[in-house]
Amino acid sequence: MKKITLGAYSYIYPMPVVIVGTLIDGSPNFLTVTYVGIVQHTPPMVSVTLVTRHTSNIGIEENKSFSINIPNTRMMNVTDFVGMNSGDKIDKASLFKVFYGELKNAPMIMETPLNLECKLVDIIDLKNGSEIYIGEIIQTYSEKKYIRKGYPYMKKLDPILFSINSNSYYNVGRRIGWAWKTGLKINASKYRKNQ
Amino acid sequence: MKKITLGAYSYIYPMPVVIVGTLIDGSPNFLTVTYVGIVQHTPPMVSVTLVTRHTSNIGIEENKSFSINIPNTRMMNVTDFVGMNSGDKIDKASLFKVFYGELKNAPMIMETPLNLECKLVDIIDLKNGSEIYIGEIIQTYSEKKYIRKGYPYMKKLDPILFSINSNSYYNVGRRIGWAWKTGLKINASKYRKNQ
Repeated sequence: MKKITLGAYSYIYPMPVVIVGTLIDGSPNFLTVTYVGIVQHTPPMVSVTLVTRHTSNIGIEENKSFSINIPNTRMMNVTDFVGMNSGDKIDKASLFKVFYGELKNAPMIMETPLNLECKLVDIIDLKNGSEIYIGEIIQTYSEKKYIRKGYPYMKKLDPILFSINSNSYYNVGRRIGWAWKTGLKINASKYRKNQ
Repeated sequence: MKKITLGAYSYIYPMPVVIVGTLIDGSPNFLTVTYVGIVQHTPPMVSVTLVTRHTSNIGIEENKSFSINIPNTRMMNVTDFVGMNSGDKIDKASLFKVFYGELKNAPMIMETPLNLECKLVDIIDLKNGSEIYIGEIIQTYSEKKYIRKGYPYMKKLDPILFSINSNSYYNVGRRIGWAWKTGLKINASKYRKNQ
């Protein structure tokens, strides 16, 4: 093994792909985002980073809410389109059937298998033209066909993955193991401290 | 389409799986984390959430640095093991060949295809027992075999994906399209505002 340096890059592979929904001057708008992630299990919280020039930022800050919609691979073209075009010029809401949940100001997409309705709890200004929005999830929406044993089922959700800098999309492969179980195959006693 | 409510959950599918490296009292320690993500492209920044009880938090705060190591699917068992066991009891560094880069206090794993060396830039206390650490990446390390056209290549990296609440690991499937290109298949003029 001979390591090489690649330079300073945000190389986390892969990243999830979501569509963020906001209300702007009373109209729904959507933006594709891959700088997104879970930040807390309970209470459930997620983070979304947006560069400050986006119209979506105004909507989030005005309404103190947003939605996260998880598209499937059949929605790849429209998901990419929503990331390429500004809400100033394109009526992106007309691409989808829009619905509202408890908040009434966090528009969600009927066609995506999963929707997270979020209440804004914090904004972190990275001071380089981007802001992290922390949202607490107050409700999630799906359809029966995407659920197995009470949880969203990856193979049915069929989400899109993003590969940074090579700018490509991937799908999810197969289940390869169980978390908090496959690790039991390693004999912990061999690595115990102070024996 | 008939939406159902699932309750309030951090349902982002899938999440990446990384191993965070820290130095604690001069010794390297590692912890598997899935609450991780890119937060900025330039300067490159990532976020990692850790519940406050972890020993890794002490290391990050003392050294103002940490590493992110991206394991491949062949490392699934050891990756799961590192997430299941505390550094107080298990010498997790002895599971890997450890190396250091420019910072000298951000231990990295030789066996993982990709390593991100991070300087701590911010801590956000979520006030519910977890903290978000924002790190600026100062260097990335890999091996020639994982690189194609100058970038890490997903199929070679072969990273692990995490499915929240169903607690399972998946691999990456196939490339399904190009970002900022597949969206061109949609006729933007049909959705233009103020026509």
